[in-house]
Parts: sequence; structure tokens; C-alpha cells
Amino acid sequence: MKASASLQIFAALWGLLFTIPLVAADDPLPSWNDTATKKAIVAFVEKVTKEGSPDFVPMPERIATFDNDGTLWAEQPMYFQGLFAFDRVKALAPEHPEWKEKEPFASILKGDMKAVAAAGEKGLAAVVAATHAGMTTEEFSKIVLNWLATAKHPTTHRPFTEMVYQPMLELLAYLRANGFKTFIVSGGGIEFMRPWAEKVYGIPPEQVVGSAGKLKLEMRQGVPVLVKLPEINLIDDKEGKPAGIQSHIGRRPIAAFGNSDGDLQMLQWTTAGSGARFALIVHHTDADREWAYDRKSHVGQLDKAWDDAVAKGWTLVDMKADWKVIYPPMK
Amino acid sequence: MKASASLQIFAALWGLLFTIPLVAADDPLPSWNDTATKKAIVAFVEKVTKEGSPDFVPMPERIATFDNDGTLWAEQPMYFQGLFAFDRVKALAPEHPEWKEKEPFASILKGDMKAVAAAGEKGLAAVVAATHAGMTTEEFSKIVLNWLATAKHPTTHRPFTEMVYQPMLELLAYLRANGFKTFIVSGGGIEFMRPWAEKVYGIPPEQVVGSAGKLKLEMRQGVPVLVKLPEINLIDDKEGKPAGIQSHIGRRPIAAFGNSDGDLQMLQWTTAGSGARFALIVHHTDADREWAYDRKSHVGQLDKAWDDAVAKGWTLVDMKADWKVIYPPMK
Repeated sequence: MKASASLQIFAALWGLLFTIPLVAADDPLPSWNDTATKKAIVAFVEKVTKEGSPDFVPMPERIATFDNDGTLWAEQPMYFQGLFAFDRVKALAPEHPEWKEKEPFASILKGDMKAVAAAGEKGLAAVVAATHAGMTTEEFSKIVLNWLATAKHPTTHRPFTEMVYQPMLELLAYLRANGFKTFIVSGGGIEFMRPWAEKVYGIPPEQVVGSAGKLKLEMRQGVPVLVKLPEINLIDDKEGKPAGIQSHIGRRPIAAFGNSDGDLQMLQWTTAGSGARFALIVHHTDADREWAYDRKSHVGQLDKAWDDAVAKGWTLVDMKADWKVIYPPMK
Repeated sequence: MKASASLQIFAALWGLLFTIPLVAADDPLPSWNDTATKKAIVAFVEKVTKEGSPDFVPMPERIATFDNDGTLWAEQPMYFQGLFAFDRVKALAPEHPEWKEKEPFASILKGDMKAVAAAGEKGLAAVVAATHAGMTTEEFSKIVLNWLATAKHPTTHRPFTEMVYQPMLELLAYLRANGFKTFIVSGGGIEFMRPWAEKVYGIPPEQVVGSAGKLKLEMRQGVPVLVKLPEINLIDDKEGKPAGIQSHIGRRPIAAFGNSDGDLQMLQWTTAGSGARFALIVHHTDADREWAYDRKSHVGQLDKAWDDAVAKGWTLVDMKADWKVIYPPMK
């Protein structure tokens, strides 16, 4: 019966039409495969948001903190802020002819990364001072945005702000939809992240915690400005993360997300609180779609935190198995 | 005609019944007299929240910062945190027999405030170190709440958290109802204010900015704790306020509220931004209901900021004329 067959096809299509979007709309984490990782995330969110549940957490206390490098965006072949600093050295070189003879600037200008690395922490501090201090906070913000508007990643050739992780963007949105307040707590520079974190992650400047230099108020032609000084105020990494959290947030997160040993203390601090807690580590296991690295990596080393995660039953993301896609669709 | 008269009375009562509550509900600032001050506040809020208006400010940028001492709660005869510190010295004295011979502790224990003042900044630093450091952040929070639960103001005999200004509570709520995010930016200690600011002002810990000491992460029996160190990290007063705002909020407020020269730089920083800005100073003019003090006061001195306010057309609250009540009703 032709009419009946047509009807069946129509009904099937009709069903598809309403089923597919509904499934997608129902699933707040569509880029996550349906694995134990995703189930653990959803189970935590459901239990802390269910009124009357013994694990219920009132909305103001639903604080979630996210590391940035390697957790929300990529960090290979080196922290993107390092690439920014090197590009700044190149841009500022004409004003600093002395850099041709001065390390580590000379090696940066020659592109000799091994020699740059050999300059160690003192060398790095000189580069940070030359590229991250001496200007006002507003000038620095513009420099960062201008760099991001044109700079491309050395191997993917994508803008850096498109190398954020689509599954993590969905996770941020899912938590916020469930009354969580999402914060960045990163070893990266607070003033480096704030100019774009709101647009890219939906995280406003007041919810960005990061490493910070001292600031000095000056009057310039009767107008107050804040000048970035080369002195460090907070290294928001490792044992600095709980201090950064307390200083900026003033209460303990109930959920924390990281990817490296730099996040270990944040995860310990978070899970040491009473009541339901959630700790998650992104393990970079996907050499084809992203990078694969852990215990022996110079960037984003995951060694002690991995052991703790296993011992304490924290959630480990296996990027290759758990994520359907890595980055958002190309713009 | 009796029936008609009854009807008229009934109609009048009916009118009253619906008119009086409506008027009250319509007025978001019922404790403010209908003066130019109130009109200036309302005019600012209306213009920055009216879509299509040239002064419209998108919601995430509606940042309002409030000083605490003398702006949100009283500060006479001395900053309440000072009274807390003195009470702590008395409470801790049995564990410190050496204080009987050591200044300024000896004078605090004897109640000789002139001698305490004579000990100057160095003496004050010793008192702060003895009363605000050496314990964990959680222990300190409990100490503050325990003190507030029992301590009474020396002349009003009210609990300190009931010496907040009712008109300012209404102002905070009015701003929040209009999409503002309200912050405290105080010279007072960040860890001293956070335990009660949410309950008393509706301002969560992550929106409290204040003076801060350094914190150190320690493991105690396998549990991480943050220990308060006696070293200063930020003095969030005068030129420290714009730095505190940038560090914690990361964007410039569009409205700022203070009462003393300690707030001058915050008001300058706020009003130096582009677009509509609002700066308000609470002038303590009411010796009967509160206190009257300004240019020559040792606490909450208002001298330079008053001159700036007049020169720049900032809004000045005349407490006596502008406020119908000072404190909330007694509990």
C-alpha cells in the first residue's frame, strides 16, 4: 500500500526531525563520548543540585575552578603565553639594539630555543619583565588582544583562541546552567587571560585567577593609571593555587579541573572540604588529534597528580577515548 | 445618604489599601529622603540601565564598589576591626604572660588607649600579627564569627553587624536589582569581612576585596590548610584601592561609594573611565543619630576627597538630611 508506506516514511522522518534535535538538546555534553568519565561528571552535578539530596549544595557554594593551559586550551609545543612573550621580544627588538648581544634575548631573536631554555628561570624572568611590565594594564590588554587577533599556532596554524577544547566549553556551560560559578585558576598571567576569557570561555575578568605582578598607581596628566611592575605578587601554580583561590574566591571550590602536577594542590585543597567534591584531570592521550604527553613532559607534566588521581579515585579524562572532538569547528 | 457615605469610605480605604503598599514597593530606597542625593542615584541607575540610551552599560560591566568602614557600617570610636584585635589580645593574654610587660600589649590590657596610639604603626603591626596571623584561614573565620556573635559596641551596645546603614543596604539591593554586581573594596581585612558579608550585605566572599596578609599552604596530618602569615600582601587603602580593584575584579567600576580620603583614589579611578560614571561620598553629619566628623577626624578623615567631590561634582550624602534612619530596626 503506497499511501501507508509513504506515511510510514513520513512518520519516520517526522520522528527523526524531532528526535535528533531533542537528543542533542537533552545532552548538555554532546562532544563527550558516553563513557564512565561523562557519567561521573553528570552524576556529580545531579547529586549536588538535587534539593533534598544529602549531597545538595546551595547555589552560592557551587564554585568550580579550572586550570587553563592544557585544561581549557592546548599548551604544546610550549605555553602559549611563552610564544606571546617571544613574539613581543621580536616586536620590541628595534627599540632594543642591545638585545642582539644579551641573553636570552639574542637566542630568542635567532630562534634558538635550546639556548633560550638554557637561560633558565633568571632568563625567563628577564623576558617576562621586558614583555609584561612597564606599561599600563590597559596598554597590556590591547597588546594581548592585538597579538591574539593575528598570531597563529606554529603547527596547527589556527588562532590560539580556537585551540580551546570543545568538550570543556560544554562542561563550563553545563556547570553554569546548573548554578555553578566557574573560575579560571591558572599559572598563566591574570592580565594575559582576562582580556579574552569572557568572550572565549564565558568567564568574566573577576572570575579569572592567575599569576600576577605588582601594580603601581600613577597620575599621568591628571589621569590615574596602573603600571605593571616587574615584581611578582603571586605565582598561581602548585602550592600557590590554594592561596590564589582563597585570596580571590574566599571559599573552597566543590569541583576542580586540571591536567598537570601544577594542579595537584588545587585538587587536594578542593577535595579536602566536607560534602560532595569532584576532581578531574585531563590526560593528554591523543597524539593524532592533539598531543600525547604526561610523566616526562616539560610542559604540563602529569606525574604526581596522576598517582594521586588513581589513589583517590579522581576522574581521569582519556582525551582520545572520552572526547568526540578536540577543538570547536573552524571559523 | 448613609449607604453612599459608607461606600465612599470603603472606596477610600480600598484605595489606601492598594496605594500605600504600592508606593512603598515602588520606592527601592525608602530610607532615603527625597532629596537631590536620592534623585542623583536613581537618575544614574536609570540612564545606564535603559537600553538604547547613550549612557547604557551592558550588565556584565555594571560593577559597583563600596568601601566598608564608614560607608556600609559605622567606624567610631575606632575601626571595629581594631576593637576586635584588642578583644583578641585580652582573650589571648593568659597564653602570653610576657604581654604584661610588652607594649602595646600592656597598654591594651590596661585599657590605656592613648599609650596604644603612641605605639604607632610598629605597635599596630605587632598587634595585627599577634591577632590575625599564625592560625588557618578557617580558624580565623570562626574566631571572627564568634566575636561578632557576642561583642557589643561600647556606646550603642548593639552587635556590630547591626550597625550597618539601612539606606546603604537598600542601595546595594537596588543596584543588584538593576543588574549591578556589588563589591566591597575596603582597607579592612579581607578575611575579617568575608565570614559575614554575605549574610549582612548580600555580598559573597568572592566579591570582597580588602587588605590581606600572605598565606602559606601546609599539610597537617595529610590535610592541606592555609596558614595566615604576619607579612602583608596588600594594603587595600588609598592608592592600594585601584590596585586591589584591578587584582580582584579586573575591570573598572562604573560606580564607587566611599566616605573618606582612603577612598579618594578609588573614586578617581572609577570616574576616570569613559561613559557614565558615579561617585558618592557619605558625609558623617549626624552627631545625634550617629557621629559627625570629617576634616580633622583620626578615623575616616574626609578632607581631600571632600574637596575633590566638590570640584568634580560627585554626590555627597549629608547623612542628617538624606537618611530617614541610620540602622536597621533592632532585632
